[in-house]
Amino acid sequence: MIFGGDGSRTAVVGKYDRQMVVDTGAYDRVLDYVEGMRAPLLAELARLAPRRIALNYSMDSEICDGITHGMYLTMMGYLSEAGLADRVVSAEGLLSALRQRKTPAELERLREAIRHTEEIYDAAEQCIRPGMSEADVAAFMRTEVERRHLGFAWDPHTCPSVFSGPDTAGAHYGPTGRTIAHGHVLNMDFGVRVEGYVSDIQRTYYILRPGETRAPVEVEQGFATIRDAIESARAAIRPGVEGIGVDSAARTAITSRGYEEFPHAVGHQVGRFAHDGTALLAPAWEKYGRKPFVPLEEGMVFTIEPRLTVESYGIVTVEEMIVVTHDGAEYLSRPQTALRLIRA
Amino acid sequence: MIFGGDGSRTAVVGKYDRQMVVDTGAYDRVLDYVEGMRAPLLAELARLAPRRIALNYSMDSEICDGITHGMYLTMMGYLSEAGLADRVVSAEGLLSALRQRKTPAELERLREAIRHTEEIYDAAEQCIRPGMSEADVAAFMRTEVERRHLGFAWDPHTCPSVFSGPDTAGAHYGPTGRTIAHGHVLNMDFGVRVEGYVSDIQRTYYILRPGETRAPVEVEQGFATIRDAIESARAAIRPGVEGIGVDSAARTAITSRGYEEFPHAVGHQVGRFAHDGTALLAPAWEKYGRKPFVPLEEGMVFTIEPRLTVESYGIVTVEEMIVVTHDGAEYLSRPQTALRLIRA
Repeated sequence: MIFGGDGSRTAVVGKYDRQMVVDTGAYDRVLDYVEGMRAPLLAELARLAPRRIALNYSMDSEICDGITHGMYLTMMGYLSEAGLADRVVSAEGLLSALRQRKTPAELERLREAIRHTEEIYDAAEQCIRPGMSEADVAAFMRTEVERRHLGFAWDPHTCPSVFSGPDTAGAHYGPTGRTIAHGHVLNMDFGVRVEGYVSDIQRTYYILRPGETRAPVEVEQGFATIRDAIESARAAIRPGVEGIGVDSAARTAITSRGYEEFPHAVGHQVGRFAHDGTALLAPAWEKYGRKPFVPLEEGMVFTIEPRLTVESYGIVTVEEMIVVTHDGAEYLSRPQTALRLIRA
Repeated sequence: MIFGGDGSRTAVVGKYDRQMVVDTGAYDRVLDYVEGMRAPLLAELARLAPRRIALNYSMDSEICDGITHGMYLTMMGYLSEAGLADRVVSAEGLLSALRQRKTPAELERLREAIRHTEEIYDAAEQCIRPGMSEADVAAFMRTEVERRHLGFAWDPHTCPSVFSGPDTAGAHYGPTGRTIAHGHVLNMDFGVRVEGYVSDIQRTYYILRPGETRAPVEVEQGFATIRDAIESARAAIRPGVEGIGVDSAARTAITSRGYEEFPHAVGHQVGRFAHDGTALLAPAWEKYGRKPFVPLEEGMVFTIEPRLTVESYGIVTVEEMIVVTHDGAEYLSRPQTALRLIRA
């Protein structure tokens, strides 16, 4: 697929894929081939005479890193033949901008996904009871997603994920048969897909023990710390700042109260995938590459999701979604301001 | 994922993916990291001290070409640091052998997928009537797949594909609202998934006109040509021969009777995907790279699927599946030996 600096949109495809690609309406011209792409590709390159050719590879951003190494070698062979190999650059800048700068229509879809997610969380809260399993709660929520004819934000085996009590896997793991018991801190990670755009929200609950009317003080303190850390991060966001500073604001809010720091970035972008975009609210760790240093822009949508462990109770983790505005950041989700208490 | 020459199987994964990977039971050791993979990866490489490192990239075989170019660059950075960059080779040979040499257990799953496919084709034949649409027939077959709790061999939008009469897209296109009419040649392409292994079979039908008891002679001749071409290809297969010769046997059987040659390879391997493996029964066209020259081996499973057009009637195309034996090839599917005639 070739997008020209002149605005042209050309697809070079196998003969039998032609009709399906024409039907998308996305391309001015669809060039098809039987024996190989060489001839139509070189003809199109000759027509465009590009000064630079941005290929979709990147060492720093997986959403911009679509081309396989074998296909890269094949493409470079054609470009060498055309005398254009030295004009190749990474498409990271272009693709990041496309994915990161949300249009009003994209924001509307994200808001709709968030609205459904919050309604399903509200319904689940009415249904959770001690004695149910994590899997029971997940099944209730998945049924609700299907009843609304929505998609899942990620693989339904871990959407929602449900972690109840101490000694869970903590993240990226499916709901188990573990029984939700009195005195558990329970957290869930969940999102839905609406017209190709997803939500990604976490909520934390406490299962009251008989006689309790509120959570133990250490659970309350853990929750308040997370809530304050999220607000610290949001307040640090505005166009032009780097994600590393935003992460640091949340991380410091956690560690300054004596908790261990969380082993992940405090927030990622959301769009067509739950983890989208290049700019990241993250520390300068090896695996994050340049991402923590990409300046934030108006229209980017991020999660903020610090976590901490309350010994013997479970993991407190809340994930909100925000949009970067011209001078700051606004919540897209309705922030969880208090622990949700489950009565027997 | 690192598979050592000593038989060791090591996974290097992010902390939160650890438990899911441990649960697979596929790895002797699971090394996890928080900040980046560099340290555990270099430690594992130091332990193995490999003479060669096969990375999963390939210019000739897409099933062996999994690593993105950005990830390849990242990996080469680590390997350079370890002084191992000059030991990197393509994993194409290893991965092709793994995917191509079917074990008895793999063959059993393929046979089971074929059995279901043939039963569903038989049921569909009883249901097809002129006046139905292509989409009606496809819906009947998809319902049958779901009733049997099977998967689809490829995207259900084109599985089955159904093409009735002249002037269809011909291949790789979803069933349309086009009405199945008297005098149409109708063909379907369909397969199911059983325990991770798929089938891929095409069948051709003729919709009798009022008063007809057999198809017009040109349709009969077209079908006989395809049937003979398939048998010519099967008879040309044995371990050690190259796919280009097998393709040529079928192609000549078609063109020698005055038909235009088909614009694709006569057959591909089948396994976990409908298009699997590296060796291909194909002409020496640019897009097929080295594939037509890879010698066939016992245990490989191929389709044979020539096609031709019968002017004013439609496309005759039959696809059988075969397995390469120690001295030839046997049909895995029950070959279509006669046009299937649909009465009003």
